[in-house]
Amino acid sequence: MTDLNELSLSEVSDLLEAGEISSVELVEVNLRAIEKTEPVVHAYASVLAEEALEAARAADEEIAASGRRGPLHGLPIGVKDNIYTEGRLTECGSRVMAGFLPDHSATCVVNLERAGAIIIGKTHCHEFAYGVNTPPSRSPWNMDCYPGGSSIGSGVAVTSRSSFGALGTDTGGSIRVPASINNLVGMKASFGRVSIYGVVPVAWSLDHVGPMTRRVKDNALLLAGMAGYDPKDPTSANQPVPDFCADLEAGVAGLRIGIERDYFFYDGVIDEIRESVESVIAEYQRLGAEIVEISLPELEITQDALFTIVLCEGSTWHRKLIREQGDKYDPATRAIVQLGELLPATHYLAAQQARSLYRTALNRAFREQRLDAMLGPTMPIPTAPLDMLNAPRADGYPDTPVGSMCHHTFNANLAGLPALSVPCGITSDGLPFGFQLTGRAFDEALVYRIAYAYEREHDWHERKAEIAGL
Amino acid sequence: MTDLNELSLSEVSDLLEAGEISSVELVEVNLRAIEKTEPVVHAYASVLAEEALEAARAADEEIAASGRRGPLHGLPIGVKDNIYTEGRLTECGSRVMAGFLPDHSATCVVNLERAGAIIIGKTHCHEFAYGVNTPPSRSPWNMDCYPGGSSIGSGVAVTSRSSFGALGTDTGGSIRVPASINNLVGMKASFGRVSIYGVVPVAWSLDHVGPMTRRVKDNALLLAGMAGYDPKDPTSANQPVPDFCADLEAGVAGLRIGIERDYFFYDGVIDEIRESVESVIAEYQRLGAEIVEISLPELEITQDALFTIVLCEGSTWHRKLIREQGDKYDPATRAIVQLGELLPATHYLAAQQARSLYRTALNRAFREQRLDAMLGPTMPIPTAPLDMLNAPRADGYPDTPVGSMCHHTFNANLAGLPALSVPCGITSDGLPFGFQLTGRAFDEALVYRIAYAYEREHDWHERKAEIAGL
Repeated sequence: MTDLNELSLSEVSDLLEAGEISSVELVEVNLRAIEKTEPVVHAYASVLAEEALEAARAADEEIAASGRRGPLHGLPIGVKDNIYTEGRLTECGSRVMAGFLPDHSATCVVNLERAGAIIIGKTHCHEFAYGVNTPPSRSPWNMDCYPGGSSIGSGVAVTSRSSFGALGTDTGGSIRVPASINNLVGMKASFGRVSIYGVVPVAWSLDHVGPMTRRVKDNALLLAGMAGYDPKDPTSANQPVPDFCADLEAGVAGLRIGIERDYFFYDGVIDEIRESVESVIAEYQRLGAEIVEISLPELEITQDALFTIVLCEGSTWHRKLIREQGDKYDPATRAIVQLGELLPATHYLAAQQARSLYRTALNRAFREQRLDAMLGPTMPIPTAPLDMLNAPRADGYPDTPVGSMCHHTFNANLAGLPALSVPCGITSDGLPFGFQLTGRAFDEALVYRIAYAYEREHDWHERKAEIAGL
Repeated sequence: MTDLNELSLSEVSDLLEAGEISSVELVEVNLRAIEKTEPVVHAYASVLAEEALEAARAADEEIAASGRRGPLHGLPIGVKDNIYTEGRLTECGSRVMAGFLPDHSATCVVNLERAGAIIIGKTHCHEFAYGVNTPPSRSPWNMDCYPGGSSIGSGVAVTSRSSFGALGTDTGGSIRVPASINNLVGMKASFGRVSIYGVVPVAWSLDHVGPMTRRVKDNALLLAGMAGYDPKDPTSANQPVPDFCADLEAGVAGLRIGIERDYFFYDGVIDEIRESVESVIAEYQRLGAEIVEISLPELEITQDALFTIVLCEGSTWHRKLIREQGDKYDPATRAIVQLGELLPATHYLAAQQARSLYRTALNRAFREQRLDAMLGPTMPIPTAPLDMLNAPRADGYPDTPVGSMCHHTFNANLAGLPALSVPCGITSDGLPFGFQLTGRAFDEALVYRIAYAYEREHDWHERKAEIAGL
């Protein structure tokens, strides 16, 4: 019999729909996988075995009585530990939040539970999603390498087959980076598409919450379950949520995909990634897309602008906590929060102005070149050994791995446009990586459609990490 | 024969419409008034006599040939000197901008000129509208007192009868304060209602441009000529511009007017103003409005929040100029710009968070109490002697006049709601003052309607300042 854990979220959803499996079975196979993989990969901050089983029994009863609420009904998922879950531990990877039981759930969790999804556990993240200290999670692809951050537990759980899909958050790349490192599909949707109410902020003008899954269709289903206008979130957009899967199979013939080579294919991109992403571009061309070379020199300001905004907004959020409980912070997080307090307001505002310049230039490029998406590598490097993150890069490129990792992801947070990482290769060292599609605001459906056209031809999802020691 | 200068903008518009006067006559009577009053009141930074006469001749020809474009066609107006006027001096009250001839006009000026209005001169303002140094303008109501700021030339020109109406800008009260001091009607419309493209910024999240006139209807006509969506201004609101005069005479029966006594009627309000504004409230009650007592303790945070935001955004705008030409700034302006550079970003962001708290509370009050407007004094004091602005208040209240003056106006800039100052009394010392109506976002028409109901009964516009020395 097929190991259910090997199937993707949409596949088990179809089996549930057909009555061939039950929600309880799905939760049980996840729990068995957790039991097997957790001692090695440490993806979960807390596992909600009893609650999940109870919810699955209720789902099975309801489905038997009145059918499924929708494609997520009865499916277990993981939720990053900086997302509020009512009455269930939400510790944000920090001793400051130890034992915290929120009295309400984040809106995205409310929406998913209303759609019938079941939370099987909370996944590890870097402290307050800052991404400076390393949680215990390890990627089964290489236990010695940086497993991604800050949504690392979600990345590791889904790639380790102990979860069909999980939520991450992304302020500068924290969904897309662990997706790339763990051979997953990860979506940072349009700013305002998914409510961030109940998600512990990093930087509220850049924060997003989104799905991490094995396949494109899984991702579209999960995003649909989370998305929608939320009056509780002042940054939420009052935009209708379409069926993100409706045109999934429509292909890319005639679509225009922009390639910015100076920034996304700069010297810091290693050859194996460069060549694979060039093959992705060739594949899209073969499938009928038009490839459009574009120039966007304003990309150069995105790293500095993002760092400045994150430091300032983050330190504003922490200013009370750091004074009252500073001793409980990891020293690296504390240093960053304190650094942010030293930045002058004029620097913050100049960074926001730089952001506006970038957005204006990007929107002009999309409009004037009639682009449907932009495409490039998600990361210039696959990952790096944990003990070499701040050392010079092994390939001699004058940067550190940490400095390189988010080079390609920051810009989408500044722009607020949807950005999706899609698996497209594995290095000779066995490290997966992905390409990134950036789409038009609130047209996630088109981004999924473009991604699916590639995935249908090249299914990296089949490749499975060997889990060390198991 | 009636002195045309004594008529209000809408009255001379009617005469032009009826063919009883010409645009050239209007410009000429303004120019004669300027000749008489300028040596004393110094309202204008530059007078555009020849250009205005030429435009008036063209207007008269066009009107004779094909009728008027609308109610502003052929009418001369003044424009504050921090608003760009193509090819015409725009000096912002600063040596830094001496001799500056913009190559384009602000959108509000473009709109007004398209509607046929004629710019007769640029009016004095405090340096870069900061309001810390005093331009040469003096109010004819009392030459020794603070004449209002920063749109002081506009206030003085209109009250001195050397202009029928003029544009001001308002970041914390700079239209409403000089309106109150000069017995005028002054409107700061909804944020985004009038484009601020081409207006030299003070603080871009708080800046507004709006009309200062002798009567309510004048004001509504001028606002209609300036307003409208402008893609060049990222803060511009894509909202239709209604006929602000359509319901002007509909009265206030059944309307609900909120009164917040703790803040707008605090101990710092002098008795004469308190009593007059209480009579305004009684008058509205007599006219059929419902008076609703409300509580809005969040008003207490508005002064600190506004100062912080102005300092930070202002200093960001000036950071290049102050380094290159710092010696040309007035020392008081320079000190403020330099002070703003010292504020940490976390303070700026905390101020923006306080602003959100206030907006949320205010919107809740409007919604839950079903308010049509809020009402209070525009200023707690009428004005103060120029040499006592930073001295203890003469009446013993523990504040300085400068500290008191904007106590009631800041909040509307933070909220972005329309706020109108309407004349409602003159102290026993001969100093005018007004009351302030705050309305719902983008419902300036209702604000004008409420103001007009009072003005129809109590026409302070008839009262004319004696101009000292003339």
